[in-house]
Amino acid sequence: MARDARGGTAQNEDFASWYTELVFKAGLVDRGPAKGTMVIRPYGYRLWELLQEELDRRIKDTGHENASFPLLIPESYLSREAEHVEGFSPELAVVTHAGGKELDEPLVVRPTSETVIGEMMSKWVASHRDLPLLLNQWANVVRWEMRPRMFLRTTEFLWQEGHTAHADADSAMRETTWALEMYSQVARDIAAMPVIAGEKTAGERFAGAASTFTIEGMMGDGRALQAGTSHYMATNFAEAFGITYAGEDGGSTLCHTTSWGMSTRMVGGVVLTHGDDRGLVLPPRLAPHQVVVVPIGKGDALARVEREAGDLAERLRRAGVRTHVDTRPQVSPGFKFNDWELKGVPIRLELGPRDLDSGTGVLVRRVGDEGKETVPLETLPERVPAVLDEFQAFLLRRATRFRDAHTVTVDEWTSFAEAVSTGWARAFHCGNAACEDDIKAHTAATPRCVPLDADAESGACVRCGAAADYDKRVVFGRAY
Amino acid sequence: MARDARGGTAQNEDFASWYTELVFKAGLVDRGPAKGTMVIRPYGYRLWELLQEELDRRIKDTGHENASFPLLIPESYLSREAEHVEGFSPELAVVTHAGGKELDEPLVVRPTSETVIGEMMSKWVASHRDLPLLLNQWANVVRWEMRPRMFLRTTEFLWQEGHTAHADADSAMRETTWALEMYSQVARDIAAMPVIAGEKTAGERFAGAASTFTIEGMMGDGRALQAGTSHYMATNFAEAFGITYAGEDGGSTLCHTTSWGMSTRMVGGVVLTHGDDRGLVLPPRLAPHQVVVVPIGKGDALARVEREAGDLAERLRRAGVRTHVDTRPQVSPGFKFNDWELKGVPIRLELGPRDLDSGTGVLVRRVGDEGKETVPLETLPERVPAVLDEFQAFLLRRATRFRDAHTVTVDEWTSFAEAVSTGWARAFHCGNAACEDDIKAHTAATPRCVPLDADAESGACVRCGAAADYDKRVVFGRAY
Ligand SMILES: [Zn+2]
Ligand SMILES: [Zn+2]
Repeated sequence: MARDARGGTAQNEDFASWYTELVFKAGLVDRGPAKGTMVIRPYGYRLWELLQEELDRRIKDTGHENASFPLLIPESYLSREAEHVEGFSPELAVVTHAGGKELDEPLVVRPTSETVIGEMMSKWVASHRDLPLLLNQWANVVRWEMRPRMFLRTTEFLWQEGHTAHADADSAMRETTWALEMYSQVARDIAAMPVIAGEKTAGERFAGAASTFTIEGMMGDGRALQAGTSHYMATNFAEAFGITYAGEDGGSTLCHTTSWGMSTRMVGGVVLTHGDDRGLVLPPRLAPHQVVVVPIGKGDALARVEREAGDLAERLRRAGVRTHVDTRPQVSPGFKFNDWELKGVPIRLELGPRDLDSGTGVLVRRVGDEGKETVPLETLPERVPAVLDEFQAFLLRRATRFRDAHTVTVDEWTSFAEAVSTGWARAFHCGNAACEDDIKAHTAATPRCVPLDADAESGACVRCGAAADYDKRVVFGRAY
Repeated sequence: MARDARGGTAQNEDFASWYTELVFKAGLVDRGPAKGTMVIRPYGYRLWELLQEELDRRIKDTGHENASFPLLIPESYLSREAEHVEGFSPELAVVTHAGGKELDEPLVVRPTSETVIGEMMSKWVASHRDLPLLLNQWANVVRWEMRPRMFLRTTEFLWQEGHTAHADADSAMRETTWALEMYSQVARDIAAMPVIAGEKTAGERFAGAASTFTIEGMMGDGRALQAGTSHYMATNFAEAFGITYAGEDGGSTLCHTTSWGMSTRMVGGVVLTHGDDRGLVLPPRLAPHQVVVVPIGKGDALARVEREAGDLAERLRRAGVRTHVDTRPQVSPGFKFNDWELKGVPIRLELGPRDLDSGTGVLVRRVGDEGKETVPLETLPERVPAVLDEFQAFLLRRATRFRDAHTVTVDEWTSFAEAVSTGWARAFHCGNAACEDDIKAHTAATPRCVPLDADAESGACVRCGAAADYDKRVVFGRAY
């Protein structure tokens, strides 16, 4: 087999293997002992923490409050919403014994928290003054996975789940749209993932939702990744759990609820969007180390360089740059360069005795056409933040170009099949579930979403020729 | 029954009922559907988040890294350390079915993570260069509780658990001591809880530890609360999981490990330490709202007051003060005063039309002798942070005075029994487990710890008269 410089599988050889090898080699993750579980190692967890900070701030700034709901949910709760239990039953992990005894009623490990939060909302909401009720939870959830894949599909994953209750449909739909737009911005501005936002077709909806919205990113192999979802539940869960408020006439009115989530799957999305055969490529906004300084030299000269590197790092940190100095004595500078490329650090600063004499260092970007650059050390605290911004913008531009180059507007079946073999197809569809299934059986592609910002258009279904539903083209692609 | 102003049980009537009623009334918590579980409501969760920030910063500043380990642990892992499995077996929740099938090996929901982290450490540690390995995890754990109590003893709770591996006993003991001291500081400086730090006797040790250290706070009824623990495991878990490193001679050497944790139990500790018959009393460092502004007036005058209150709040926020303006139209100022007293807000600012005319407001502290104070509005952004610091210091002084007044040095049994009925006794003990049990059977008191900073002393066991162990007096008390 062809191998890249690191001895791993190359992207164009087997993208799936490239991904799996990389997340382990780069120290993001390890396998947990139970089937499909993962250990998120410090380097991967720090990336998740940085994403959490961005999400949490936006969630709080808009009046949502964090809370914590129980991990273990009585099995009967799930049955109260018929579609919900049907959707989640095959994936449940069930606690049948506790405290040394068999339980009277089994408890499921939460696969999501609509039911238990619905139950609490019914206690907390009495009048319109309690609405909207805007809650969020940072939590772990468990969904039994038959074909696990690190970060993308794991038996346990971490996420935030927003849950809100509203007096009417309008207010709930505004919330659903707000969450979707918030996710789009975080994906684009923080993860440098140029997602498209749209509505899911009926077959891809969340179990129990009236409508499901999604952001979809294109990964480096042209497949789609559902990177965040926002659901409008109408009164489905309010009916099931009795979430009502006293209306102005004194009568009892059902609330409209929403839920929305983004998870550790995003870590996988960052790897799949930006990575290359040399390793990860991290957007600066999510990079645990934005700059790594590698001191070069021997003996006394090295000691001097390391002192200067430490001072420089301190000045960069004061300028808000997450900086690491690699002083490992047992490995060579070349090893370090490769190692930090594998780990996707945006900027490497090489510092040797001769550089110090001339007051300069060598700045190397992880990717891009600008190559190596000799820069005066004293300008770095000002310069580096700008270079990081440029690097962040470059990744987004590159990913957008890639996505656009692999998205084709098609009107007939052969072009459709060709388009979804390497990327996405924008096509008309009849909206018929059997026709969706037929497309999936032939191409492995599914409708990813009906983009919100697409123009109104009409035409004939790309597969069956019937009149198109949705009034616009649907984006199809193979998905993770 | 006697009732306090809010219609609840008074502290001196039934402290346990006072506590339980208060945590619900103040909106900190609600009951979860499964036995012994809790819902942490936004007001309680925000308090926990503020404590988390303080802990997380200290943990990271000392080189520890956060990671995430699986919730579900194969049952066989626990059996590898004999004392560990014996200690935790009665409390386990067990997943026997998942994905629609019975599992080949049941999975326990983690009661703590020594075993699964031990397994990973054995993979990650190879040479002395990998040591010390300093990990921390923010997580939920489940221990089946027969006599649950909100925050203090719940089936599921949230915590951080630090887990570290070291080359030798010295390094591991320094870590154990560091964690204990860090907890003492956070308890004292942030929660205003004047804890004592000491070592547990053998009978109170963590299952699998060589030595367990604890911080113990005195609650408002004189009982002790174990508020944080730090364990030195010696090589017990390293042997069970094969955590070894290549020594300089090339041979394989066992690591010494530690673990340490602080949990949502601290929220209960804050309530029990500072609360009174009017409600919570929150230390400013943990108060979700440090200041609540209550605008007073009617019609146009109220509108003007609310505008000014909003401006003032903005200036206070810029000065770093967490400020809330209570503009609820449907309730009276008197209701609001009571409500924020119930919720323990350190400072209330009353603002009326006549105050505005004179450029002043009325500042009211939640507790203390200083009563109401009329203050110029323009000085508040400077003044309030100082008042909050004083308030924080006052709570610590008051709790320290209370603890010292309820801690008695005793040398004979009658005084001992009297002391532990209202607080703590400092007494000599023989170190014999049967004698500990005998004391517990007669007084419900247990050895809380052997204080680290106590003077060396010797004497006869306060119960059986045998020669004292430990070379110093032991603190006994009834505990939560
Ligand atoms: Zn069709
Ligand atoms: Zn004795």
